[in-house]
Amino acid sequence: MNLSRIESPVFREKVITAEQAASYIKDGMTVSVPHFICYDSPVSTARALLGRRNAGEKIEVKLISAASCTPVIDEDWTNAGMIKSFMPYTQAHSGVRKSANTAEGGLNFMDYRLSMIPEYIRSGYLGDIDVALVSVAGITEDGKLKPSVCAGYTQTVLNCAKKVILEINLQSSEGMYRLHDVYEPGARPGRQPIPITKATDVIGSHFYTCDPDKVLGVVITDEPLFLSPMWYPLTADAAPPEVKQIAKNFVDFLQREVAEGRMTEKLPPIQTGGGMVAGTVLREMGKHFKGMEMYTEAVLEDAMDMVREGSIDFISTAGFGCAGDTTDHILKHPEEYEGKLMVRPVEISNNPEVIRRLGLITMNNIVEADIFGNINSSHVNGTSVISGIGGALDFAQNAGLPCYFTLSTAKKGALSCIVPSCSHIDITEHEPCIIVTEYGVADLRNKSPKQRVKEMLRIAHPDYRPMLKDYYERALEACGPDKAHTPVLLEELGTWHIRARDNGSMLSTD
Amino acid sequence: MNLSRIESPVFREKVITAEQAASYIKDGMTVSVPHFICYDSPVSTARALLGRRNAGEKIEVKLISAASCTPVIDEDWTNAGMIKSFMPYTQAHSGVRKSANTAEGGLNFMDYRLSMIPEYIRSGYLGDIDVALVSVAGITEDGKLKPSVCAGYTQTVLNCAKKVILEINLQSSEGMYRLHDVYEPGARPGRQPIPITKATDVIGSHFYTCDPDKVLGVVITDEPLFLSPMWYPLTADAAPPEVKQIAKNFVDFLQREVAEGRMTEKLPPIQTGGGMVAGTVLREMGKHFKGMEMYTEAVLEDAMDMVREGSIDFISTAGFGCAGDTTDHILKHPEEYEGKLMVRPVEISNNPEVIRRLGLITMNNIVEADIFGNINSSHVNGTSVISGIGGALDFAQNAGLPCYFTLSTAKKGALSCIVPSCSHIDITEHEPCIIVTEYGVADLRNKSPKQRVKEMLRIAHPDYRPMLKDYYERALEACGPDKAHTPVLLEELGTWHIRARDNGSMLSTD
Repeated sequence: MNLSRIESPVFREKVITAEQAASYIKDGMTVSVPHFICYDSPVSTARALLGRRNAGEKIEVKLISAASCTPVIDEDWTNAGMIKSFMPYTQAHSGVRKSANTAEGGLNFMDYRLSMIPEYIRSGYLGDIDVALVSVAGITEDGKLKPSVCAGYTQTVLNCAKKVILEINLQSSEGMYRLHDVYEPGARPGRQPIPITKATDVIGSHFYTCDPDKVLGVVITDEPLFLSPMWYPLTADAAPPEVKQIAKNFVDFLQREVAEGRMTEKLPPIQTGGGMVAGTVLREMGKHFKGMEMYTEAVLEDAMDMVREGSIDFISTAGFGCAGDTTDHILKHPEEYEGKLMVRPVEISNNPEVIRRLGLITMNNIVEADIFGNINSSHVNGTSVISGIGGALDFAQNAGLPCYFTLSTAKKGALSCIVPSCSHIDITEHEPCIIVTEYGVADLRNKSPKQRVKEMLRIAHPDYRPMLKDYYERALEACGPDKAHTPVLLEELGTWHIRARDNGSMLSTD
Repeated sequence: MNLSRIESPVFREKVITAEQAASYIKDGMTVSVPHFICYDSPVSTARALLGRRNAGEKIEVKLISAASCTPVIDEDWTNAGMIKSFMPYTQAHSGVRKSANTAEGGLNFMDYRLSMIPEYIRSGYLGDIDVALVSVAGITEDGKLKPSVCAGYTQTVLNCAKKVILEINLQSSEGMYRLHDVYEPGARPGRQPIPITKATDVIGSHFYTCDPDKVLGVVITDEPLFLSPMWYPLTADAAPPEVKQIAKNFVDFLQREVAEGRMTEKLPPIQTGGGMVAGTVLREMGKHFKGMEMYTEAVLEDAMDMVREGSIDFISTAGFGCAGDTTDHILKHPEEYEGKLMVRPVEISNNPEVIRRLGLITMNNIVEADIFGNINSSHVNGTSVISGIGGALDFAQNAGLPCYFTLSTAKKGALSCIVPSCSHIDITEHEPCIIVTEYGVADLRNKSPKQRVKEMLRIAHPDYRPMLKDYYERALEACGPDKAHTPVLLEELGTWHIRARDNGSMLSTD
């Protein structure tokens, strides 16, 4: 057994096999795998538990994750009926999503804001956590735990779980702890402010702490880190012209904001969602703005490349949502990124207090927006959840400039991303924002619902503009003269999505 | 001219008449009356401007308020067509609401979160403020301004407006400044944390400051303070049995939370909305919990009585939303309330950072909730705005325990307050909460949308439960086996509200 990663004598005595570790997990327990994005999952223990299930044992647990786990959990546990409930977000794997969308017998998917889960854990709203399964990269001589790749709710869960199982993968990056800034908000009453006043502030420790008495054992494993294919880079290089146009529209908008004095030339820190649009926008911004910093939840491959190239000065993130040369380089040489890259717990990366204080520019993808500026970022046709709300609300509600990007249509034009009425509402019209498509920028600030309609029509696809205009005019008429703050047609709230569901297209069949 | 309220020689020289003051306000300007709730409005200047309009002059302004103003503005200015746009909240008077709901030619009502408006002002998102009309109770020898009754966005607007007109009402309470704690978040970048770690913390000054060079003049007026009838107390005394049952249900729930360790016996600070339900709940809580403190936006008459009686230890508020003996007593003897009552700017009373740090119990009214826990607190039948979102989102999104109260039905049973689908969504299902009716407590924490349906049906009125159950079962069926995270029926999203609109009742006519 290779014990090189465990310098602490106390923890050396706790080494157990994955099978022994898994034996502590019983049917009906609440289990937490508190990492953010799948790199970090305790795969050996997860696989050992799956083995017991496959051998016929009934094991069904409530799972508190921080986002997608390893496919051994998200796919295999789910498909084996081992997950009774799951929170809070799932992207990389379809297993959890499929089960959440099952009418009967699927898992209960709790779709909460990422920044709130640690509060719910501490407050006992999620019940006791019986066992935490925690990946670490090593243990110091005095018993401190070295974070491996991404942060999550790890310290919160280490504090609150009744028992803890640690897993060390010998192929994980032992030096990544240098980039981590572990910070846990204090108990209430008496909690102090989170002392971040700029994206680069170091406020915590490089290490997690855990009472050794509640550690059931330490599992040592040795296998390649695995990131699911979906996370692989969709970088700006591959962007089609419409996406490049979104980037151009947004940079033009930002430059106007600077010219008119609403934005400083040195931009506030930036948050982005994932995917090609965000990467393309960021690349375009890098050509026009100097000294950019990010304060984000999951970092893009494009952004990490820009750090290496010098067009982004600094990134604070909770995790790495991609696999590529730069991520590999970071994992192999974390010391080269000190002062350029910092990994924070999700509760801190997504914290309303910090987001508002820093005045972030936030840039996220959406499913659809309605003509009044309500936004759906979680559901298809009102019923099927996609990935979950993730950090979208944390950022939307507190940003200095909340911005959303979407192509004007999806499914080769069959779906309009600007609709009369969203099929599910996640971000409300009360939080005015910037919505960008390839047709322009809808600036919803300082406008009433009726004023916003004009902005939204302008960025809709031309094929859908007449339909949207027709809807709005009929709605305004139908509301009557004195009930028209937000002219909606109650008779047609679902019409576009019914067509999408039944015909595969929102285009009218008339 | 009685100059006794102006100790500053610089400001004494600036005394002008209301007519002179009003002459600085021109058609097309953006004007701010940054007070919170109508007590504080600069009525003389407002009336003088109205006089010019009535004499035939075209005067139409964009108005940035902090909530309802004096009826001279909310009613008379609106009815005279003097307001092009209004933000952010209107409750006491129907003028703004009627105009906002007008299909064509009404004012543009910007329904934003109260805590965000000062950020929008500082960021320039609302354009320049040409003139601020600010009520103060007096001016100190060194030129500091004494706040009168309520706080609002006053310091922000004094900082950002191009020009300022001050109005001093000789009948205002000169000593109220003792209860004010004026604090302005710093500029970005470099903004520091708001240093409140308990409801009682004093972090600012008793006074506003304003560069005398931008003060166009000081108007002195002498007339009784006026609070519109709607704000008059609806106290717990008058509560019908159903409301008392809501209070009992909620206190039972809180006691269970304490017994099961999710809540401390000394409760976290409390926020309440207005009205009889909140007052009744607060009274009931006072019988069972000791040492209660409030950190709220607008304080109830019941709450102030409880401070006098000793069952509430301390209240931090942005304003007084009622008129009664206790309010009168406070205005006459503010010194007796030092250490018991503090008035903070709305940006601080409603600040996400502080709300989350303190872990508030928030208690607000709603219009309706759907069976998945989405909440409408702003619109009737999707189209007519009532008062605006106010602070509801600020508190909902950041509270330690967000709670909502509603009778199970409205309009003598004709409307169910639990519906299949909200006609407008303000607070989303992603922020799990407690919803209380006279039939019980729906605890939406740690539950998926499908699990929440059972909770919501339980608190619905028995007349509507079978209809809700029928809807849900049909929705679950219609979604199909694999698209059912949130089973909604796209065909029936508006059905209940169409019946309400057309028949005056949500009850089925079958």
